[in-house]
Amino acid sequence: MVSVLTDADIRARLRPGQAVGWMREAVLAAHEGRLRTPPRVSTDLGDGRLVFTTGALEGEWFGYRSYDSFETDPGQQVVVLHDWGSGEVRGIAVGNELGPRRVGAIGGVAVDALARSNAETLALIGTGTQAFTQLWAIGAVRRLSGVRVFSRDRVRRIAFARRASEDLGLAATAVESAQEAVEGADVVVLATNSPTPVIDPAWVKDGAFVTTLGPKQQGRAEFGPELIDRADLVVTDSVAQTRAYDPPFILAGTPQHDRLISLGAALSGNVTGRTVLFCSVGLAGTEAYLLAKLVL
Amino acid sequence: MVSVLTDADIRARLRPGQAVGWMREAVLAAHEGRLRTPPRVSTDLGDGRLVFTTGALEGEWFGYRSYDSFETDPGQQVVVLHDWGSGEVRGIAVGNELGPRRVGAIGGVAVDALARSNAETLALIGTGTQAFTQLWAIGAVRRLSGVRVFSRDRVRRIAFARRASEDLGLAATAVESAQEAVEGADVVVLATNSPTPVIDPAWVKDGAFVTTLGPKQQGRAEFGPELIDRADLVVTDSVAQTRAYDPPFILAGTPQHDRLISLGAALSGNVTGRTVLFCSVGLAGTEAYLLAKLVL
Repeated sequence: MVSVLTDADIRARLRPGQAVGWMREAVLAAHEGRLRTPPRVSTDLGDGRLVFTTGALEGEWFGYRSYDSFETDPGQQVVVLHDWGSGEVRGIAVGNELGPRRVGAIGGVAVDALARSNAETLALIGTGTQAFTQLWAIGAVRRLSGVRVFSRDRVRRIAFARRASEDLGLAATAVESAQEAVEGADVVVLATNSPTPVIDPAWVKDGAFVTTLGPKQQGRAEFGPELIDRADLVVTDSVAQTRAYDPPFILAGTPQHDRLISLGAALSGNVTGRTVLFCSVGLAGTEAYLLAKLVL
Repeated sequence: MVSVLTDADIRARLRPGQAVGWMREAVLAAHEGRLRTPPRVSTDLGDGRLVFTTGALEGEWFGYRSYDSFETDPGQQVVVLHDWGSGEVRGIAVGNELGPRRVGAIGGVAVDALARSNAETLALIGTGTQAFTQLWAIGAVRRLSGVRVFSRDRVRRIAFARRASEDLGLAATAVESAQEAVEGADVVVLATNSPTPVIDPAWVKDGAFVTTLGPKQQGRAEFGPELIDRADLVVTDSVAQTRAYDPPFILAGTPQHDRLISLGAALSGNVTGRTVLFCSVGLAGTEAYLLAKLVL
């Protein structure tokens, strides 16, 4: 029988240190071409779309994650893993934990490789699932002494800080403004749905590492082009995915776009930067990669 | 927990008469626009493709079937059903029964609506799964007194005839040539992978109903254009799918293409023809439709 993992299984079985290590393997495998990660595809069902992001680890497995854009947030996502040789289904995950945990773990890979080794203060703008899983993973790669969280909803930011403490054992403080969170922070995570900038680049200190999870398209982005100018290294987990953006990726057509490198290239080339911007767009195949680690 | 149906579950629980009734509902719902059936999408993973065929029944559910083109035949297909309102997964089927049974049932709908009501002799060219599930469904809508089966492999056609008797209680005869099978048959099913014609249209008797399951693209088809000329009614379960063919659908650019109508239009308009050609291409959303009937 096929084993089906639920959200409770993922929460119980996926440890952040392990997840970051596996995602580092995946990012390198994608860079070397062993992990194949084509851009996502979707179909239009009238009231919403079904989206499929697929991947294959050469000689090992192929699989995908499906999710929808119906007004059923959060709905349930499905991750399916097939054996490469037989085509048989080896595992299925149903729920909403695996997707964001994998994004968090990829963020952890980026922080581990590109943020200062002594980074200890973290600013989180946004208090949703993506912000939480970034914290979950970053806490496994840096010894965090200060976590400051801001979102516009006071109740949500206080609840988030409490959950950080209870679930992750990390002392987090809900602060009153984005500026208060960001100023002086070694690592900044933007994890909002905002179509307009949520921080002033002047708040970001020199040498900081900034991850953006939210909108980053031209005319619709949670940060402005000035933030890109501030960075001397701009990295993304999937260049292919940024090319498939419509409207275009915020860097497209700008001089900074020529500087954009993949996280895999950064990892394998020992690239470093003083101030780093990491554009998290969702490397395909990584959900199936995590599922493979859990079930094979 | 999500219920996962296996091939054994599908074989045990899906009855052909019921399946034909449900597929008739689905074909009509698609014709009325309540069942949304966009063309399939796929991604290229180097050694093979992952293909997704999706559908949504307005206000009820959305879902999909996934299958692959890796050299892992038959591999395993996955069908997923989501609740329209909550987005939660209501059912999953893993295996290779649901897809061809649904194609069989749609073929049963077409025979029931468009073949002569007293049709009793059936010719099957091809002895694979698709041929078997057509027989499974057609046996539920017509009282078959003679079933003749041909494929090039003698062992396979004899085994098929035995399985028809043992599994379906239908007396089938393995014959020595396609001509022997087709001549005089009321219903003809072509279910091969042949890129070139497997029958001579002159063998098909006037007033027969012919279904084609195999290749039907320009330059690569299991029948020739003369068969289309012989038909005075040409029907398909998905006009959208025929338009997405590459190389193009065998009728594209021919005068006969203007005559092509959907099975839904034929059902709702009480269209009839003397000699009928049914081009089975796989109406999207119908796998999820069957799964919905089995699990909701």
